Amino acid sequence: MKLAEKINQLFPQMIQWRRYLHQHPELSYQESQTAAFVAGHLQQLGLQVQADVGGHGVIGLLVGDLPGPTVALRADMDALPIQDEKTNEYASQVPGVMHACGHDAHTSTLLGLAYIFSEMRSTLAGSIKFIFQPAEEVSPGGALPLIQNGVLDDVDVIFGVHLWTPFPVGKVYSKAGPFMAAADEFSVEIQGKGGHGGLPHETIDSVMIGAQLVTSLQTIVSRNVNPTEPAVVSVGSIHAGKSFNVIAERCSLLGTVRTFNSEVRDQIQKRMKDMSHSICEAYGASCEFDYKVGYPPVSNHAKEAERFFKVGKEIFGSEATLESPLIMAGEDFAYYLQKVPGIFMFVGAGNADKGVWAPHHHPSFDIDEESMRNAALLLAGMALDYFESNDF
Amino acid sequence: MKLAEKINQLFPQMIQWRRYLHQHPELSYQESQTAAFVAGHLQQLGLQVQADVGGHGVIGLLVGDLPGPTVALRADMDALPIQDEKTNEYASQVPGVMHACGHDAHTSTLLGLAYIFSEMRSTLAGSIKFIFQPAEEVSPGGALPLIQNGVLDDVDVIFGVHLWTPFPVGKVYSKAGPFMAAADEFSVEIQGKGGHGGLPHETIDSVMIGAQLVTSLQTIVSRNVNPTEPAVVSVGSIHAGKSFNVIAERCSLLGTVRTFNSEVRDQIQKRMKDMSHSICEAYGASCEFDYKVGYPPVSNHAKEAERFFKVGKEIFGSEATLESPLIMAGEDFAYYLQKVPGIFMFVGAGNADKGVWAPHHHPSFDIDEESMRNAALLLAGMALDYFESNDF
Amino acid sequence: MKLAEKINQLFPQMIQWRRYLHQHPELSYQESQTAAFVAGHLQQLGLQVQADVGGHGVIGLLVGDLPGPTVALRADMDALPIQDEKTNEYASQVPGVMHACGHDAHTSTLLGLAYIFSEMRSTLAGSIKFIFQPAEEVSPGGALPLIQNGVLDDVDVIFGVHLWTPFPVGKVYSKAGPFMAAADEFSVEIQGKGGHGGLPHETIDSVMIGAQLVTSLQTIVSRNVNPTEPAVVSVGSIHAGKSFNVIAERCSLLGTVRTFNSEVRDQIQKRMKDMSHSICEAYGASCEFDYKVGYPPVSNHAKEAERFFKVGKEIFGSEATLESPLIMAGEDFAYYLQKVPGIFMFVGAGNADKGVWAPHHHPSFDIDEESMRNAALLLAGMALDYFESNDF
Amino acid sequence: MKLAEKINQLFPQMIQWRRYLHQHPELSYQESQTAAFVAGHLQQLGLQVQADVGGHGVIGLLVGDLPGPTVALRADMDALPIQDEKTNEYASQVPGVMHACGHDAHTSTLLGLAYIFSEMRSTLAGSIKFIFQPAEEVSPGGALPLIQNGVLDDVDVIFGVHLWTPFPVGKVYSKAGPFMAAADEFSVEIQGKGGHGGLPHETIDSVMIGAQLVTSLQTIVSRNVNPTEPAVVSVGSIHAGKSFNVIAERCSLLGTVRTFNSEVRDQIQKRMKDMSHSICEAYGASCEFDYKVGYPPVSNHAKEAERFFKVGKEIFGSEATLESPLIMAGEDFAYYLQKVPGIFMFVGAGNADKGVWAPHHHPSFDIDEESMRNAALLLAGMALDYFESNDF
Repeated sequence: MKLAEKINQLFPQMIQWRRYLHQHPELSYQESQTAAFVAGHLQQLGLQVQADVGGHGVIGLLVGDLPGPTVALRADMDALPIQDEKTNEYASQVPGVMHACGHDAHTSTLLGLAYIFSEMRSTLAGSIKFIFQPAEEVSPGGALPLIQNGVLDDVDVIFGVHLWTPFPVGKVYSKAGPFMAAADEFSVEIQGKGGHGGLPHETIDSVMIGAQLVTSLQTIVSRNVNPTEPAVVSVGSIHAGKSFNVIAERCSLLGTVRTFNSEVRDQIQKRMKDMSHSICEAYGASCEFDYKVGYPPVSNHAKEAERFFKVGKEIFGSEATLESPLIMAGEDFAYYLQKVPGIFMFVGAGNADKGVWAPHHHPSFDIDEESMRNAALLLAGMALDYFESNDF
Repeated sequence: MKLAEKINQLFPQMIQWRRYLHQHPELSYQESQTAAFVAGHLQQLGLQVQADVGGHGVIGLLVGDLPGPTVALRADMDALPIQDEKTNEYASQVPGVMHACGHDAHTSTLLGLAYIFSEMRSTLAGSIKFIFQPAEEVSPGGALPLIQNGVLDDVDVIFGVHLWTPFPVGKVYSKAGPFMAAADEFSVEIQGKGGHGGLPHETIDSVMIGAQLVTSLQTIVSRNVNPTEPAVVSVGSIHAGKSFNVIAERCSLLGTVRTFNSEVRDQIQKRMKDMSHSICEAYGASCEFDYKVGYPPVSNHAKEAERFFKVGKEIFGSEATLESPLIMAGEDFAYYLQKVPGIFMFVGAGNADKGVWAPHHHPSFDIDEESMRNAALLLAGMALDYFESNDF
Repeated sequence: MKLAEKINQLFPQMIQWRRYLHQHPELSYQESQTAAFVAGHLQQLGLQVQADVGGHGVIGLLVGDLPGPTVALRADMDALPIQDEKTNEYASQVPGVMHACGHDAHTSTLLGLAYIFSEMRSTLAGSIKFIFQPAEEVSPGGALPLIQNGVLDDVDVIFGVHLWTPFPVGKVYSKAGPFMAAADEFSVEIQGKGGHGGLPHETIDSVMIGAQLVTSLQTIVSRNVNPTEPAVVSVGSIHAGKSFNVIAERCSLLGTVRTFNSEVRDQIQKRMKDMSHSICEAYGASCEFDYKVGYPPVSNHAKEAERFFKVGKEIFGSEATLESPLIMAGEDFAYYLQKVPGIFMFVGAGNADKGVWAPHHHPSFDIDEESMRNAALLLAGMALDYFESNDF
Repeated sequence: MKLAEKINQLFPQMIQWRRYLHQHPELSYQESQTAAFVAGHLQQLGLQVQADVGGHGVIGLLVGDLPGPTVALRADMDALPIQDEKTNEYASQVPGVMHACGHDAHTSTLLGLAYIFSEMRSTLAGSIKFIFQPAEEVSPGGALPLIQNGVLDDVDVIFGVHLWTPFPVGKVYSKAGPFMAAADEFSVEIQGKGGHGGLPHETIDSVMIGAQLVTSLQTIVSRNVNPTEPAVVSVGSIHAGKSFNVIAERCSLLGTVRTFNSEVRDQIQKRMKDMSHSICEAYGASCEFDYKVGYPPVSNHAKEAERFFKVGKEIFGSEATLESPLIMAGEDFAYYLQKVPGIFMFVGAGNADKGVWAPHHHPSFDIDEESMRNAALLLAGMALDYFESNDF
């Protein structure tokens, strides 16, 4: 039986796993149940399994009966602090937590590949390392601890995918070189002076100052950054005050910066810091500004990009294997690519006809599950092509 | 023994009560323990006690042995959702809840007067109704339910005080006519479109829109309201988003409006509503705007204002009995004054030398407890003068 | 013939003068033609005339045949840099210059009174000094130079009026004590870095910074000033850049601050200065902030306020002689009242039925000319009452 | 004598011309003296000269003695409404007008080439059309009228250069495909309600509204445009009000939009229009929004880009012939490239060591004149290579 057929056969099971995980999402660094679920399956398959690697990481090693290189395939397992607004039967059962980025499907797809490749052990000329990574959504992320625990030490190449609803199901995307953005995190803690809502002159109104700062921060991208350099400054959350008639003592901002270029990254960090302090000063307040340098840009290796275009065209056709634009999202897959050759690829998961339209991190997020089949085909195809090629 | 001496004698007990209540604050509508504490004392004194009136209200009626009018004295009992930042021995023991407005001292002072007047029953030509009101801090407040339960039906005049740290201890303040502001509450719920923090163009960023709206709301007071009309628009809280890398779907604003004039009140409400909708529209979002008309202005009766100046000068001297400026804080004491004659008075409670400086609703709020003695003297003086005068 | 009849008789002439002056407005400090027009008339009447006093000031002294005190009556003569949008026959003939504040009518009314009192010389027990003042609209204004030239040295009392369209024709208004605001002037010159409109990252965009500063300045009144203290911060003009595709090097703001209280005045000046520098700093720019302390508040003398209410009621009736609210406009009449007793009064000049509605300084400004008759009656009445009373 | 030597020989003359033109700048559509200067020289050289083509355009045709194709070389002649801040001997003598973009040098360089190629007529296998174009700085620009007058009808290829101070002298830059931005122009005329500076509540303050709009417009690039699409929205000028104490009736904004992609261009135009109307509405004002679609993007032809890299490397070396980044400036050279093959190239003109640093359109703008020699070498090299190649 061919690999594609095996995938087709297992596909209903992969969907079932995905829906189960979708109902039981776990936040970053808290993926204990998901990891146990994964480890259970891998052990059942007879793989060499390591659990609790670098946190809740689970590693399954499949050693083929023939000698050859080691290909790593990676999925991420964590969910997001978003309230699921779907009402279907597989909607999240955990209030305020949701797989709004598709990691449930990444995990299920990779689990499916573990089953499939396990049956091919006798003809496998090399090893496959299945990496189930925790904590992709929050910096410092789960990739670095895995690497520090030696997960890549015996790995020759690494492949990963992201299902992506802005791209239509049926198509796959990647590119050589810079691909996904550096993703940093910042916080600003504005210290005003609380007081009575009717007596603003006796206070320093941290809500108003926070508002002015958010407004000011827009000008960094609109005025300070070279327009030909892609960059994003987003304030993801703002919180201040508890009561309608009390002026808030403190206002907290939290957000992210996305860039592809280290000079721009430094420029933005400096502008944000200076601006935060000066804006607060303008209103008689002060602030603590904190900037955490996050994931570096994902930069795909040229040779694996060539492999992607070759393999993709074989599986999906020329029309469906496309050069990706730059992606402003970040990925700690970047750290793996700093260590070993490899590529990160996007698999289209949107489908307007089926009502699958919501962007990632949206409360109505869902995927066309057909994308999981495509992701499995692509990852398997890349691995097999690597084993078959003479050039590693 | 004179009344002032009796107050001096009981003063240490009043402080002890106040500090106990300060350690055990209860939010509006949740004052069950405070009410039980008060009711227990009143019952011990042999007053006619009604508990659970209009919520957690407690009424104690002291009927003098001689015939005469009924004077009501009112204290409020609720605390605020503020984290006490004091570290002294009587700091709040309830996380996030604090007597940051002095209601603990109002309650203790009035309790002291119940003890003192109880001993004077034989010579009392009339009755004193001690009103311990819940829920002064939040609209619709505790005064209306008490009135609807008939608390004022047999009352001839009502007096109330507020300890006030912006005024120095030793001085008392009031004025005839409009005195404290109408206090309304508003909320704006901005509906954007959530999404990935690195992909703002696929979202409608509710944090940014909330910031623009807070900034815009400043112009209502600075540009639209007649500068000779005192008015305040304060956004007390803003909340949106949970994660640094997710653009928030919704942003919630909560705040208060203070005015002394119904035309200005209507103008502000209309401007806020129009502005909220147009600003959201400017950025492709929508919003729900809600405006709750709250307490009316406190308007003191002229005759009782005269009494205040006479009594105040007798007790504290001319230099210490002052015409108050307009106060932007609101008070549901306003409702009592719409029903029966009376006056609301401020008793200075600030003392820079003792480090008592924090404005009301501030996390470091405290009072110079000497102000409780003055409040007791003033309320008792007003009541006795009323009983003694022929003009009621 | 009674005074009121004389005024009625001369009224058509006063209107004719007013319309002539309305067609030929002159900016502050440039009132040479208006002054010549006035001086010509006064000389014709045989008054002691001084021209070019403290600039274009014209003083006419009428010495009565009987001994008595000296009453000063003052009018202002200058126009504003506003383009008249009226299209009637007496619209301004000078492009960009307009009597948009009614000084043309003040001058014509006072000229009328000079004619009328000249005929009463034989029965006049005292002197009347007719003061035609230049440059009321711009600080430092024309009043101070007149005073420095001794204009008030022999004056016992001074009266002045302002026609006022927000008040209805037929009514007159004033009050004892603080009446009109202190009026200060400020400028901010923002120094950015010019450059190509398509290359914002190589510039410091002074237009954007000016916009942020104007937005920030709104918060001084909305947050920093005690809401019970009337205050205004208005940016009257903003100018930057000449071309659509060049980012402007400099942005200039010009504006006014209005207050009644010197502490608030100082507070606002300090906040503006700090804010201007910090906001510029937040965006990498710098600025020059300049604050010119202007006219003090107009504060009417209590005795003359009593006279106003008495005389007003005699002429216009009780319903039409009203206590004025505080007026946010400034007036250099304030300087006269710092030197000698007197009062400044408002004469209603609006008339919705006649389509006279535009506020002062509006391009469609006009008056109901009937207000000139009332102004003449009021000023004459005040002067005669002063002469007749024994209490000066 | 070789071409490079001829250029070196003429170089002092080219500098002299450039400095003369720098002293005598003329605004777009007003280049009559510059055109006369150019036409005089061309006539002296015996070229076929057409003046007043499509405005102040001047065309000189040099027909070589040997048959061959026609190469067009283009320079632009207009200056900008900027006040020259230089104080050296060749600073602008026209107040408020300045060659702040280097068109003086473009014109002088092309004039130099006309002299040089005129001497080479006998060996020239084809024709060279020297196009001196007016009005490059303002839309609709001078290129279209020239094209409509048939200037390109007999042209086989067109080359143009821009001296560019952000690039160092000695280097040349271009790229195949999209190179310079589409440059559109917009205006917003905000209609408020004028009035007295001390009475904001009777007005609708157009200065404040203009400020809020400029602030809001920043969010289009920061939030609405795909971060991977270069885009600029710049407000180049803001003008409102004349007086410190009059609230301005109207506020005028003027600016430019830069894009490389027609969907983004449409998106920005729509957002700006909606935003302008909604923001004005939020404050009770209205506006007229006008958007003029300007120059399309400059898109270089691939074959001529290859020629540029070949010729550039021959003349300046590999290190100095570089792939250009995208340039946010616009150019109506775009129209020529829509009609005939060709390329637009940048010639480095900045030199920090000589104090030549100011960006284009800056009041201190100047060039390292050495860049003119390089521009002459590049244009001449491109033309000769074209004549010599067999592939046209």
